[in-house]
Amino acid sequence: MTMTDERHNEKMQKKQAAHEKIMANKTQEKGLLIVHTGKGKGKTSAALGMVTRAIGHGMKVGVVQFVKGAWETGEKKVFDAFPDVIEFKAMGEGFTWDTQDRARDIAVAREAWEEVKRMIADPAYRMVLADELNIVLRYDYLPLDEVMAVLTAKPADKHVIVTGRNAPEALIEAADLVTEMTMVKHPFRSGVKAQPGIEY
Amino acid sequence: MTMTDERHNEKMQKKQAAHEKIMANKTQEKGLLIVHTGKGKGKTSAALGMVTRAIGHGMKVGVVQFVKGAWETGEKKVFDAFPDVIEFKAMGEGFTWDTQDRARDIAVAREAWEEVKRMIADPAYRMVLADELNIVLRYDYLPLDEVMAVLTAKPADKHVIVTGRNAPEALIEAADLVTEMTMVKHPFRSGVKAQPGIEY
Repeated sequence: MTMTDERHNEKMQKKQAAHEKIMANKTQEKGLLIVHTGKGKGKTSAALGMVTRAIGHGMKVGVVQFVKGAWETGEKKVFDAFPDVIEFKAMGEGFTWDTQDRARDIAVAREAWEEVKRMIADPAYRMVLADELNIVLRYDYLPLDEVMAVLTAKPADKHVIVTGRNAPEALIEAADLVTEMTMVKHPFRSGVKAQPGIEY
Repeated sequence: MTMTDERHNEKMQKKQAAHEKIMANKTQEKGLLIVHTGKGKGKTSAALGMVTRAIGHGMKVGVVQFVKGAWETGEKKVFDAFPDVIEFKAMGEGFTWDTQDRARDIAVAREAWEEVKRMIADPAYRMVLADELNIVLRYDYLPLDEVMAVLTAKPADKHVIVTGRNAPEALIEAADLVTEMTMVKHPFRSGVKAQPGIEY
């Protein structure tokens, strides 16, 4: 069926009216606790997209990467061009299966978490990204209670983004915005390797 | 149960060995057709994260936004700082329910699509983002056959990213990497409005 232009325009007018009615009730501005989880790709990428948007608006952003650091990432090179509005800390020394040293992993996680706490407490930061914090929680490298106490007591006007698969239930409960990235199709399965611009 | 450090290290060694075996078979580098779809947030943000990574690696990227343009976006301000490696076209004049003019929407979609086609054909671009193209296809503003013919014939070394909810089945079939963003929790439901750094 081909819709005539007139019918389409009528439909769009109704849609606009409904949209405006909904948006009229959305007046609240607040700092969000945001979680990107799931097995699909895009958890970190989507957080980096938000960081890009925020610094574009002149908001100061703090980024702490818990389990990256092995690759020289493209995002770091871009963010380095905006030193006044972004502090970028790649703390994790590769994935845990590369280090095989639990005590060292815990120490690194602790150090990274102290950075996150500092950024959450400092009013200068409008957004804080704790990238792959869920992975660290999954391995019990940090006590969940301690992390949740800090996240749930964050300043009301601050956005905090936590990424990583297997987000703990308590974090999902406490969050304002939770997106699950679901893998529908992945090229690793057919022999394609990690590539710049896509994975790092 | 608390795992001892030794047991953890053994487990991680096994994990590393398995990981290396898998990665040894992943030697192929190829341009990917990537789709971000689903009702959740993060489809465009994740694409922008990939764009940020790519330009950080010095890859030239073309971005065409099909249905944005009403908001002054944060990402545009960041990408404007890298004019040599990114061409950014915000073509869409707000959402369709704001324009209520199907003929005009189709003309705008056509104009945006011509930009995408040009970037896909031009070897200078290593990555092309057709942001919200799925929405345009959903409203039949562009013929699906024509779009699929161009996407499936893209140069082998080029990454093309298509975003938007309701990705057509043919596109999912043809894609190398498909992620569905699923909404678990959304603050709009509790009266929070769209905010800079998050939605735009």
